[in-house]
Amino acid sequence: QKSFRITVLPGDGIGPEVVDQAIRVLQTVSDASQDVDLRLETHLFGGCAIDATGEALPASTLTACKEADAILMGSIGGPKWGVDSKVRPEQGLLQLRKELGVYANIRPAKFASDSLLENTPLKSHIAKGVDIIVIRELIGGIYFGKRKELGVAPDEDVAWDTMPYSVHEVQRITRVAAQIALVADPPLEIHSIDKANVLASSRLWRKVVTETIQNEFPQLKLDHHLVDSAAMVMVANPRKLNGIVLTENLFGDILSDQSSIIPGSLGLLPSASLASAPSLPSSPNFKPVSGLYEPIHGSAPDIAGKGIANPIGTILSAAMLLRYSLGLDKQATDVETAVRKVLDDTEAGGHGLRTADLGGKTSTKEMGDKIVEVL
Amino acid sequence: QKSFRITVLPGDGIGPEVVDQAIRVLQTVSDASQDVDLRLETHLFGGCAIDATGEALPASTLTACKEADAILMGSIGGPKWGVDSKVRPEQGLLQLRKELGVYANIRPAKFASDSLLENTPLKSHIAKGVDIIVIRELIGGIYFGKRKELGVAPDEDVAWDTMPYSVHEVQRITRVAAQIALVADPPLEIHSIDKANVLASSRLWRKVVTETIQNEFPQLKLDHHLVDSAAMVMVANPRKLNGIVLTENLFGDILSDQSSIIPGSLGLLPSASLASAPSLPSSPNFKPVSGLYEPIHGSAPDIAGKGIANPIGTILSAAMLLRYSLGLDKQATDVETAVRKVLDDTEAGGHGLRTADLGGKTSTKEMGDKIVEVL
Ligand SMILES: CC(C)[C@H](C(=O)O)[C@@H](O)C(=O)O
Ligand SMILES: CC(C)[C@H](C(=O)O)[C@@H](O)C(=O)O
Repeated sequence: QKSFRITVLPGDGIGPEVVDQAIRVLQTVSDASQDVDLRLETHLFGGCAIDATGEALPASTLTACKEADAILMGSIGGPKWGVDSKVRPEQGLLQLRKELGVYANIRPAKFASDSLLENTPLKSHIAKGVDIIVIRELIGGIYFGKRKELGVAPDEDVAWDTMPYSVHEVQRITRVAAQIALVADPPLEIHSIDKANVLASSRLWRKVVTETIQNEFPQLKLDHHLVDSAAMVMVANPRKLNGIVLTENLFGDILSDQSSIIPGSLGLLPSASLASAPSLPSSPNFKPVSGLYEPIHGSAPDIAGKGIANPIGTILSAAMLLRYSLGLDKQATDVETAVRKVLDDTEAGGHGLRTADLGGKTSTKEMGDKIVEVL
Repeated sequence: QKSFRITVLPGDGIGPEVVDQAIRVLQTVSDASQDVDLRLETHLFGGCAIDATGEALPASTLTACKEADAILMGSIGGPKWGVDSKVRPEQGLLQLRKELGVYANIRPAKFASDSLLENTPLKSHIAKGVDIIVIRELIGGIYFGKRKELGVAPDEDVAWDTMPYSVHEVQRITRVAAQIALVADPPLEIHSIDKANVLASSRLWRKVVTETIQNEFPQLKLDHHLVDSAAMVMVANPRKLNGIVLTENLFGDILSDQSSIIPGSLGLLPSASLASAPSLPSSPNFKPVSGLYEPIHGSAPDIAGKGIANPIGTILSAAMLLRYSLGLDKQATDVETAVRKVLDDTEAGGHGLRTADLGGKTSTKEMGDKIVEVL
């Protein structure tokens, strides 16, 4: 029997509500497989941790994260700990990413079910068939470069940030993109995004991405887009970016949020942040990677406590966790299939359930119930 | 009789074709008003200037731009002068902006005619009524900060860029946004965009924007959005950003391109880059501002020379030129009205003309002919 340790960080706002349902799904998986034992342990993180301990990422939480096989997070932040507060939940998240070394953020944006096409803000014929995986470098660039605040000498009335990238940082994220591209058959195309007509770090990015693919993955298709043009294409004709959108931290922050609006609702989408390139569970030399898994939506303080948040983003994050960090590919696929079945509204027995974000009335718990039942 | 000097930079690709039609419109305006004399002078700029002189911005062109009352540009660049070339058209554009001190880039994104709703990639009920003016700081930030290329010592395998902002730079662009907001009745709301939860320059930005509006324009409504969230809202529910979207150079590059996809076609949209806050032509203390006017589309090498490009973006840029740099508000409005009439397809005598970008067959010249005729 294999035993795995999962650290759970419910966080703030709707975080605990959606995480509860994902926990039930993980427990169902654990109960159903005799040879798998999942041990879940909950820790304080984010605003609730600030309230309880004064710190967004308490030392005990960090230790539990480092010792776990994987981490499942809800969402953090809220108006109570705004931009003007001294200690902010976001700082804890940036620190956690850096401490864990999770440099590869993976965000798939595709329709869980075609029945959601009516929910996308794009015309249906533009949105249909969009299948983009954004791969964002997560612990480099302007997020972690040196900076100077307003009011600090010299030049007290100037503030600045730096956007650094090294060859090594770009190589490793390119390899993650390539590994994921190769899992599909035919392999996915890679669209690398930069602002090489202006930025030095983007010129490094473009050169290293090009050389890494040419030398190590010559079978993959690669093209380059400027970030302004990519932001346009992602609305005008997003299927042009189908495959992998590979980009640095800040551009990835913007483009991944933009892409996630396409498949109907933010509430549906998962993400994984990995500390090394994932290998395929079915491969003979599978190695689990440690990772942080979270839905892409925020803590949504306006609907917190009402029991109406969509738990699917968190449940699909748990599926990614099963696949990449535990090597339980079959179980991951089962969860994804159950989700699709609950969303679909078909004669073949889909249930067509919809939470409030999708214009429906299904509660968080009812959605969890049904997914567990189908599982 | 008032005489004005306009420097015209047709540029590359479809640039000369669309500029030709805007010149006809300006000449029609000049011929129709006895007390106005427009003198147009064409100069080399961009790729064509590189081919002819080795420089994207020859000294004689720069001088002509500095001496003019306003500059009308087509578009520059093309595959011939790609990212790997030593001299690139874009460098000339960045240099020209800096030399002219045009720190305020103004890009309205709204439907020239509701009959274009079918051309937007968004669902019609989401796109209808979008009326956003992006105001982008144009000569600061990461575009003009210090940078270091790959291969340069020390740390040869690292490249970096810096994003600096000073209090003064943010104050003056905020004042431009406020002046433009105040022209409307009721005044437009200002949505300021930053990444203040991560960047020091964004914290300066948010603080200075807030204080400038509070102290100097207390009657204006202001809110703040993080850039990732703004990119999402601009697709999910763009009317939420109606009014003015005020932002720094890099975020403005991305968001203005993203916003311009909404009103049906890039080919329709104009832009102005100004060296000071514009005043209203009707105001008793009107002062013309010097500016650079250009359509927002690129040089579109794939359709260059075919005579099918949409000249409306350039013609509406010429209207902005008449308004802001020459103080000819009435003539500007006449041009805008003529454009709307040519696009509209109404019983009241609209013409419903469509160039290829809008799915029609009208040629560049036919579109120009009709606008001149209606004028
Ligand atoms: C909370 C914030 C610091 C974070 C980021 O910008 O990375 C968030 O927007 C995200 O994308 O996970
Ligand atoms: C050509 C390029 C340098 C320029 C920019 O990034 O500013 C362009 O994208 C623009 O928006 O005018």
